[in-house]
Amino acid sequence: MAFRSNLKSVLIDLSGTLHIENEVTPNAIEALNRLRSTNLKIKFVTNTTKESRRILHERLTKLGFDIKQDEIFTSLWAARDLVKKESLRPMYFLDDAAMEDFEGFKSEDNINAVVIGLAPDKFNWNNLTKAFRLLLNGAKLIAIHAARYYKSPDGLSLGPGPFVKALEYASGTEASIVGKPASNFFCAALDKVKPTEAVMIGDDVRDDVGGAQALGMKGYLVKTGKYRDNDENKIDPAPYKTVNNFSEAVDDIISSLNDSS
Amino acid sequence: MAFRSNLKSVLIDLSGTLHIENEVTPNAIEALNRLRSTNLKIKFVTNTTKESRRILHERLTKLGFDIKQDEIFTSLWAARDLVKKESLRPMYFLDDAAMEDFEGFKSEDNINAVVIGLAPDKFNWNNLTKAFRLLLNGAKLIAIHAARYYKSPDGLSLGPGPFVKALEYASGTEASIVGKPASNFFCAALDKVKPTEAVMIGDDVRDDVGGAQALGMKGYLVKTGKYRDNDENKIDPAPYKTVNNFSEAVDDIISSLNDSS
Repeated sequence: MAFRSNLKSVLIDLSGTLHIENEVTPNAIEALNRLRSTNLKIKFVTNTTKESRRILHERLTKLGFDIKQDEIFTSLWAARDLVKKESLRPMYFLDDAAMEDFEGFKSEDNINAVVIGLAPDKFNWNNLTKAFRLLLNGAKLIAIHAARYYKSPDGLSLGPGPFVKALEYASGTEASIVGKPASNFFCAALDKVKPTEAVMIGDDVRDDVGGAQALGMKGYLVKTGKYRDNDENKIDPAPYKTVNNFSEAVDDIISSLNDSS
Repeated sequence: MAFRSNLKSVLIDLSGTLHIENEVTPNAIEALNRLRSTNLKIKFVTNTTKESRRILHERLTKLGFDIKQDEIFTSLWAARDLVKKESLRPMYFLDDAAMEDFEGFKSEDNINAVVIGLAPDKFNWNNLTKAFRLLLNGAKLIAIHAARYYKSPDGLSLGPGPFVKALEYASGTEASIVGKPASNFFCAALDKVKPTEAVMIGDDVRDDVGGAQALGMKGYLVKTGKYRDNDENKIDPAPYKTVNNFSEAVDDIISSLNDSS
């Protein structure tokens, strides 16, 4: 198949694809090692608003994965790149653990951006009014991602999305969303590889597969993590392939490399 | 003119129309007395999320207006009527001063509604997540009004609207907005008078005049309070009449009553 013969890069989601909490998905460690034995470029891409690259790297290493820190590209890192590129001086709605990624990009004065992640302690009227006034003065609104809610131990809890929407509505500003499924996110993760020369493997049919395919990549949907029956029919075009797990996606990629060699 | 000959009721906005802060608009007290000398039914209608009917009545009486407490119909009172009619047991995002209007309608258990007014101290992630979970369980979302922001001494501050939008987005619920310009608000204020037999006088071209006219009333736009040049061209159909102030609106109403008698 044409796209495989020139395949250069594989993007891989983390939570739900390589592991679920502290459990590795079936044969995922071995599968990643097999993928390493090809000459494909590998990047791990994830939407997180809470954990720095270092923390994610630590967790994955503990689980037994052979991963380098700079192979991890997150929505926080995408925000950091944007802050750097545009020399922004943001007000951050982020947890301390996430702020690690923004070392060297903290400012007290001349704030000209608002970065919204998940920061329950910071989401209150005072801080949001402060952010609103910054937006009225022309500050840029950046959303790590716009998830409506997330699963917490005691039930569903508000994600960053509702607070992004609140500020958009109040200020008439539109947020730049830097995480999946934004095209810019995948572009940045691919670095200089063309989307048609890359595949994405993930458990989220919209954010992983739909987002990647919108850019011209091919998407593998894995039936682990947040996958639910029938998810593969929820996007158009459908996922390139729907497989049981990450290991099967790797099998398929490697066998097609061999086919075309 | 046809509508005047059967005119039965006059709805009057408070802040910006009868007074601005502690200042009465030109000849407003005398004008109200002149209006009292007709047999027109008078109601005072206002969007407030902060002040009970008793507090508003006290303030207006102090300014010299001859007003009865039960002639005042507010967005808080409209919410109270809805809570009563539908036997709701709400979680309230309201200031203590506003809660006066909800005496007898407070519940601790089996909460089945969320009422959003302006309550800076209560707008935080914890409370909003609590409200979000109630909405997921089928609670009704009620917004006193959906203003984006308001003028506070130190600048513009977030109103209830952004928090209503946040909860709508998170839960996929649509809020019932009970204040102006909602048709239901004017209907309730009119009691049993037909909209075509009533006029509205106010300084807000959209919330007062536009809202009233959408229901079939005729609207007087006064050039006091929040009126800004050219406001009368911002709605279609335009205000029935645009006048300098409340007193002129009363003159016009009375003279037309005489014309048609």
